[in-house]
Amino acid sequence: MSERTVFFLSDQTGVTAETLGHSLLTQFDGHHFRHVTLPFIDTDDKAREAVQKINEAATEADARPIVFSTLVQDEFRSVVREADGLHLDIFDVFLEPLEEELQQKSTHTAGRAHGMSDIESYMKRIEATNFALANDDGGVTRDYEKADVILIGVSRSGKTPTCLYLALQYGVYAANFPLTDEEFDSGALPKILSKRQSQLFGLTIAPTRLQQIRRERRALGKYSSAQQVRYELREAEKIFKKYGIP
Amino acid sequence: MSERTVFFLSDQTGVTAETLGHSLLTQFDGHHFRHVTLPFIDTDDKAREAVQKINEAATEADARPIVFSTLVQDEFRSVVREADGLHLDIFDVFLEPLEEELQQKSTHTAGRAHGMSDIESYMKRIEATNFALANDDGGVTRDYEKADVILIGVSRSGKTPTCLYLALQYGVYAANFPLTDEEFDSGALPKILSKRQSQLFGLTIAPTRLQQIRRERRALGKYSSAQQVRYELREAEKIFKKYGIP
Repeated sequence: MSERTVFFLSDQTGVTAETLGHSLLTQFDGHHFRHVTLPFIDTDDKAREAVQKINEAATEADARPIVFSTLVQDEFRSVVREADGLHLDIFDVFLEPLEEELQQKSTHTAGRAHGMSDIESYMKRIEATNFALANDDGGVTRDYEKADVILIGVSRSGKTPTCLYLALQYGVYAANFPLTDEEFDSGALPKILSKRQSQLFGLTIAPTRLQQIRRERRALGKYSSAQQVRYELREAEKIFKKYGIP
Repeated sequence: MSERTVFFLSDQTGVTAETLGHSLLTQFDGHHFRHVTLPFIDTDDKAREAVQKINEAATEADARPIVFSTLVQDEFRSVVREADGLHLDIFDVFLEPLEEELQQKSTHTAGRAHGMSDIESYMKRIEATNFALANDDGGVTRDYEKADVILIGVSRSGKTPTCLYLALQYGVYAANFPLTDEEFDSGALPKILSKRQSQLFGLTIAPTRLQQIRRERRALGKYSSAQQVRYELREAEKIFKKYGIP
């Protein structure tokens, strides 16, 4: 299997092109893909620069590059298309059927996908991020009434990253609270949580995976032992069941 | 313009389908799109349930739904396709040209795009998130040597969300430090920053936008006045220029 260069082209940051390409390329085993993102292609010069880079990669390798792009404007898309590669662009493929379906020409305007036009939704995501930061790890609990969700789970089950992701991506107000010996010994949730049952969601994780993650933090000792990890997850599951926490 | 229901179908979380659909739909003005995400379609039953929901939406409205999907497995994709809607699936469209290009059949395996197979990259993103949290807002500066980037900018220029995004999405170690009166008065960076010039990146923002954002936090007073906002941004730009900070 050969090495291939994969380009991600965008008139914005390239996140959508990367997401698209990543979903597709994981369906092909055994290749080594070299990733190159070329963002902010919003002038003719930049489009021509991209063509040059793709052609250089094509000349250097045995196989032509794969080019994932999300270029809204026809003019830049047609420049880029001159490059020697396999071109896959969502606007090429999906705009036409959508225009037909909606009986309307698309605006072909760049920079809308992550646009700042909707200040309200932007503010909500920023405020949600602040909320997640302030209400992390059970430190502060007095603002729980404002939480859309409160995630509970054992140490390193992924509470903080999940809360931050929900906030940044969706503007969800997400707090989190760690389950520790206190809860496992009593088999009960603290009152601050038990009275908020409708907001609670439990996170669980495969024992082997949790052990792997904990070992990265502390290689030895009880914290990352198979026995401890299984015990904590089992007790956490019991609590989820007892309170009917999804 | 009519209201349309837009479905996002996935055998995973639906994030890729949402990203795809969002990029495309922002190209059409004046419509009201009702969004419905149906994630984790990984059994025949769930595929049929999705068909039912799409058909219900089609019956209720004047116009048929638009269905963005990222269903890897042919069997579920063909079930879903029976539903009454405009179907747009990246695997339908892009897998075949990729198979031809790579001269290889795709594995058609669900759940790879956000797979946990690469523990190293997962750990890096988690550790980078912890780093961003610990090194936020100039509070702690002793770990700056570990930072891939240190973002500097005025209050509310977007430092924290950007750091968290870089960490969660790319595993980049990103710290941030706020520029305040201390820096504006002296026109200089503190030593902890000036000795780390190669790691520094400056964030800027349009004055009207910053004012809008600050007003959400504190409606009145100097903090969100046009004059103050313009002053701070101007002084910050001067500092960026002086130190050659991109």
